[in-house]
Amino acid sequence: MRNLLFKASFEGSSFHGWQQQENAVTVQGELKKAWQRLTGEEPNIIGCSRTDAGVHANEYFFNVKTESRIPCECFPVALMSAKLPGEIALLSCAEASADFNARFDSVKKEYVYVFENTAVPSPFNYKRAYNYKYPMDIEKMNEAAAHFVGEHDFSAFCASGAQVKTKTRTIYAASVERDGDKVIFRVCGNGFLYNMVRIMAGTLLHVCCGKINPQDIPSIIESKDRARAGVTAPPDGLYLNKVYFPGDANEG
Amino acid sequence: MRNLLFKASFEGSSFHGWQQQENAVTVQGELKKAWQRLTGEEPNIIGCSRTDAGVHANEYFFNVKTESRIPCECFPVALMSAKLPGEIALLSCAEASADFNARFDSVKKEYVYVFENTAVPSPFNYKRAYNYKYPMDIEKMNEAAAHFVGEHDFSAFCASGAQVKTKTRTIYAASVERDGDKVIFRVCGNGFLYNMVRIMAGTLLHVCCGKINPQDIPSIIESKDRARAGVTAPPDGLYLNKVYFPGDANEG
Repeated sequence: MRNLLFKASFEGSSFHGWQQQENAVTVQGELKKAWQRLTGEEPNIIGCSRTDAGVHANEYFFNVKTESRIPCECFPVALMSAKLPGEIALLSCAEASADFNARFDSVKKEYVYVFENTAVPSPFNYKRAYNYKYPMDIEKMNEAAAHFVGEHDFSAFCASGAQVKTKTRTIYAASVERDGDKVIFRVCGNGFLYNMVRIMAGTLLHVCCGKINPQDIPSIIESKDRARAGVTAPPDGLYLNKVYFPGDANEG
Repeated sequence: MRNLLFKASFEGSSFHGWQQQENAVTVQGELKKAWQRLTGEEPNIIGCSRTDAGVHANEYFFNVKTESRIPCECFPVALMSAKLPGEIALLSCAEASADFNARFDSVKKEYVYVFENTAVPSPFNYKRAYNYKYPMDIEKMNEAAAHFVGEHDFSAFCASGAQVKTKTRTIYAASVERDGDKVIFRVCGNGFLYNMVRIMAGTLLHVCCGKINPQDIPSIIESKDRARAGVTAPPDGLYLNKVYFPGDANEG
């Protein structure tokens, strides 16, 4: 039995997130149906992240154990042609070791959160960015974002109800840059809590509008109090951008 | 009664085209509903073009006669807030002369047709570009496109069943350029027949794959035979890009 690792990309606005659900269109659910059509197998599709409804992925990995003999180089196109929606693309397929698990083996992830900074939201960015029409102070946002870097208990940046052993995560990099009409918040870490990037993005918006000072971020983190951080920014602007596994050239 | 000219933009993939229809979501239909909500009036919304289902507009104009006293500078945001779908944006509003008509007064239009030239279609270009995975010879496409320029009877580039007095149109410019993974066909003329740009785009694809030689374009035009031109490219890649009215600075 082969263990195949797929690299994918999806536009999340038409999906109720990654994870399969009854009566809802999800990325995992659509992949499963296409897999069944193509191979006849009932697959166990293990995704690298449980992205929420409306969240996008420039890069996403999942692995599947299979008896299928379809060669790796043919598998992505074959699976896409098995009526996979056009909002999901399969970019590559490679054989992984038998015990590889896309969920547990990822060591680092990068997310981007895209703000559209225009007076009028473009219809072409609808559901793909979060429109903010007031001036954005990139320098101040960067100053705030820099405080996210390091190993911290991010309880203040976690949606309530999340069941995890520890809320300590390490952020390797966090920065904000302008790209034309867009303002992009980029954050890389060893793991992320539920809604963590969206709460960070909402907090940066509060920095923009003066509700939070950049130098207040450390005390907000220390407080572990969700109420002190900013709003949860909508999923529209959130993209899983890069996923790293052990042995990746740029893993470190 | 004021005659208001609106500049709009829309992402066409969720609409059955511009024109209002029963039991189908259209751009004109959505604008009409928003107008009724905002003003209570039953508007006559006159669009500059009857774009097909799935076609996009970077720039689109429509005019409406109204008794409303909402100031021009507030009207776009007010109308958008009256539950206009996010796939439609209103960019500006200005008062026009009483006899101005967005449909009949436009003197020139530019369309772009966007090809995505990648091995795997990106989910972010789905319904927004036409994926073509083989190499594209921009020089050859440009050579072919140049033959569109001038005043011609474009019967060979018109979908059958079109009821128009004359199929003679003037093309002012037609060119193809690569922009990263995208290949963009840009065409500007005094008017366009039904499916004309999409048939031109399909013909350029036939040039790409060697079915049609660039130097054959003049004889295809002369033949007035639809069967000699290429396929009708799908609406996904088509964008109304610019619309000119008399007196525009760059109208000529």
